Amino acid sequence: MDERAALSLLEGELEAAGDDAAVVDDLVITTDMLHERTDFPTGTTRYTAGWRAVGASLSDVAAMGADATAAVAAYAAPEFDRDELLAFVRGARDVCNRVDAAYVGGDLDGHSEFTVSTTAVGRSDDPVRRSGAEPGDLLCVTGTLGRSAAGLELFGRSAREDSASDDDSGVERANDLFRFEPRVAAGAALAPHATAMMDSSDGLARSLHQLAEASDCGFAVDSEAVPVAEALFELADGEGTDADPLERAIAFGEDFELVATLPESALETVRAAIDVDLSVIGSVTEPVEGITLDGEKLPDRGYTHGT
Amino acid sequence: MDERAALSLLEGELEAAGDDAAVVDDLVITTDMLHERTDFPTGTTRYTAGWRAVGASLSDVAAMGADATAAVAAYAAPEFDRDELLAFVRGARDVCNRVDAAYVGGDLDGHSEFTVSTTAVGRSDDPVRRSGAEPGDLLCVTGTLGRSAAGLELFGRSAREDSASDDDSGVERANDLFRFEPRVAAGAALAPHATAMMDSSDGLARSLHQLAEASDCGFAVDSEAVPVAEALFELADGEGTDADPLERAIAFGEDFELVATLPESALETVRAAIDVDLSVIGSVTEPVEGITLDGEKLPDRGYTHGT
Repeated sequence: MDERAALSLLEGELEAAGDDAAVVDDLVITTDMLHERTDFPTGTTRYTAGWRAVGASLSDVAAMGADATAAVAAYAAPEFDRDELLAFVRGARDVCNRVDAAYVGGDLDGHSEFTVSTTAVGRSDDPVRRSGAEPGDLLCVTGTLGRSAAGLELFGRSAREDSASDDDSGVERANDLFRFEPRVAAGAALAPHATAMMDSSDGLARSLHQLAEASDCGFAVDSEAVPVAEALFELADGEGTDADPLERAIAFGEDFELVATLPESALETVRAAIDVDLSVIGSVTEPVEGITLDGEKLPDRGYTHGT
Repeated sequence: MDERAALSLLEGELEAAGDDAAVVDDLVITTDMLHERTDFPTGTTRYTAGWRAVGASLSDVAAMGADATAAVAAYAAPEFDRDELLAFVRGARDVCNRVDAAYVGGDLDGHSEFTVSTTAVGRSDDPVRRSGAEPGDLLCVTGTLGRSAAGLELFGRSAREDSASDDDSGVERANDLFRFEPRVAAGAALAPHATAMMDSSDGLARSLHQLAEASDCGFAVDSEAVPVAEALFELADGEGTDADPLERAIAFGEDFELVATLPESALETVRAAIDVDLSVIGSVTEPVEGITLDGEKLPDRGYTHGT
């Protein structure tokens, strides 16, 4: 059984599953496991790993429209190097500080592969679900899409280059791109207005399919409105690559932006309350219209975590 | 750096570290990672693994005297087998049901080794710390010590026996011994009276050293009062073994009982409020007296997790 099939199985078993975070009373809680082989390309610093792993869980809290309260991490590695461990903790703490959450440590475990499991807890009296989008609502996304795709390509290029090279600017840039701002403040500002919300960690295309299934709706997306990360255009300009920036921005995922639907009447109120761009990339349609990009079917493709 | 040194390093970095769970506002939160090689001996069912992994985190919540609110788990394995996954979830849910916590699922991850990371969240307005024990207080422990040591030995014996044998009663018994009752109700009943508390997951001897360090006190333990699990005597009777049941009960750990100090005046009140035995195994002494068992120094020995 692959991961998606297994997740579907569990959604049938667990009432609370199916959103970015589970809701228990006024708490939202979410956990993620990341590991070296699939999630931290060669060149990823432990500072970036701490930031990114904890940030991924904070993004799930953000996607519920909740305030972020605290995060913990279990850190597993073949050996515990003082500098690596402290760098990880600094990254974890710094990303928590960005969203006013407490980073309160966690567990250590000897393990054959560097593996991190993070959990974040937040509070909300009225969390936003994936269900609830209504035909006519605007479809919005925060920030830009494609930073992680660009980071991954830069990590890959650096790994292929002569390792004796003193120029590690590519790796530095890749680490920068891999550290993201969890959209907790934007999520909280969207919460009173958004009819449905999730994060883009599985890619925009897959997120739309998941929202459509939960909300029983369709989406019409306008490709020109999709906010593609500048770094993807730079990479496409700099060296020959077949990958189209828009295609990558839509399919790749791991960007941890918010994908939300809301009534047009709320747009300016939300925009005035947040300090990140909120792009209107399309609208919610009737389910029979399906999910389209410039009128063409947008398939359910994207990044499957950890496989 | 070994795991204990790494933990000490982190305790210096993280204010909230140093107790069984971190405290953020009225929440307590704790995370643990367990994996096959070190934590789940051959013969451990996935039902037991789910119970035990989630139970370990619930035990940390209990050790703070908090109510258990919810638990999540990240489940990582080389492949996702439907029956194994469902058995794990049932174990996790059953142990949560025992303590009135919600099991709300978590994450799945492809990984070379079966690895589980669990997080539990609870609430307390006045959590019990490891610090606070006062000379003259009673030293108490819930339940019995040594169930996990006995379970581990039974798993080992079964693995060494002819695998063609149809008699799997040893493995069944070992699984039973590996599933424990998180002492959440007892912890909550102890909370208003206990001056210090933690769980016995690192073994009684190590727990006492940790409590002594946090509380700046000593302990005088009476070996005859230590509640040794019946299963350890049975194993010692049944086959020749050098291991002394008392020695194992004190040093082995992984039992998830509560070790608490409290004024003698509170003992009967607490006993009347809980449905598990609370043994008085000694008393809190001045720090200069150290930690003694029947008047002899009790060294800081025990089980180190995950190594």
